[in-house]
Amino acid sequence: MAERARRGRPGHDQASVLRVAIELFNKQGYDATSVGDLARELGLTKSAIYHHVPSKEHLLERALDEALGELSSALDAVRAEASYSPDERLREAVRSSVVVLAQHLPAVTLLLRVRGNTPTEQDALARRRDIDQRLAEMVQEAAGAGAIRDDIDPHLISRLIFGMVNSLTEWLRDEGDADVLADAVTTLAFDGLSRHR
Amino acid sequence: MAERARRGRPGHDQASVLRVAIELFNKQGYDATSVGDLARELGLTKSAIYHHVPSKEHLLERALDEALGELSSALDAVRAEASYSPDERLREAVRSSVVVLAQHLPAVTLLLRVRGNTPTEQDALARRRDIDQRLAEMVQEAAGAGAIRDDIDPHLISRLIFGMVNSLTEWLRDEGDADVLADAVTTLAFDGLSRHR
Repeated sequence: MAERARRGRPGHDQASVLRVAIELFNKQGYDATSVGDLARELGLTKSAIYHHVPSKEHLLERALDEALGELSSALDAVRAEASYSPDERLREAVRSSVVVLAQHLPAVTLLLRVRGNTPTEQDALARRRDIDQRLAEMVQEAAGAGAIRDDIDPHLISRLIFGMVNSLTEWLRDEGDADVLADAVTTLAFDGLSRHR
Repeated sequence: MAERARRGRPGHDQASVLRVAIELFNKQGYDATSVGDLARELGLTKSAIYHHVPSKEHLLERALDEALGELSSALDAVRAEASYSPDERLREAVRSSVVVLAQHLPAVTLLLRVRGNTPTEQDALARRRDIDQRLAEMVQEAAGAGAIRDDIDPHLISRLIFGMVNSLTEWLRDEGDADVLADAVTTLAFDGLSRHR
């Protein structure tokens, strides 16, 4: 897409403009990125950009909504599976968080860098806190059911495990094999480094 | 210190200017912070700041050097302990990374946000890669000795475990009880969430 854009060929739509915008926001920061920068990157004029999208903030909103919507749907799906025990539910929550992160890497990376400078960002932070709260509840339910260790505060466990998941955005460069990665993270989270007999 | 500074009282030295500078860099970003901002925060004139420090970049250099120096010394100390087995060495490396992070939280937070925009930042990134490499070697030695699991790539293990450690900067607000925190992280990293008999 970036290649095609630089050659100035036609064929952009809102979705492709969004992809390139997210890339730029992640590379140089949302605040430091202008619609002019985006136009240059796409080989379009500013007015052509405004033909596709109403504003830079709209692109941020769409990007954050992608990440939050996917993470939230994944938790809904895990929660809806009535046959799961509390620790299976937590395991699936960890696993599907990794899969969403890998499959929507640019949008999730952008989400995790949001600091709340605008109403759009504050809204995203509120939705992110809601997701964190749901994850913490799953940890608490599993601990309460005696299914996972109870010698570490469940809130701390939640922060550490999903801190590990989120740290993937620091180095992951493409989706790769999201399932293999999700297996590794889930195994490490539940079984740790030590060899257990 | 910030209180004293706002009242414009004397008593600043290079160390106290550095503390306030690191706070500001973390709050509003290094690039977005001017020496004028720093002067305002300290209740000093810009020329008074330049009496204490030669430049903004010098403050960044000092801050990154604090974080990198402490992390590196901690690994030197772990490596120097000849009685450690490979898995004890790794365990102590995890533990002491958490302690350094908690005790030097502002400087380590700043280090983890560096993206390599200036020679100072690039130098810090190179030193950080060197530390990451030493940590990865410790994981590899422990895996090679059969002391930890070998069904996950040691490089991935290193990234995940120290990703979990580094994620503390996302929410930790003060040093708190660094040892208790270090225990929790080390236990989770080695033993995982599951109850093991």
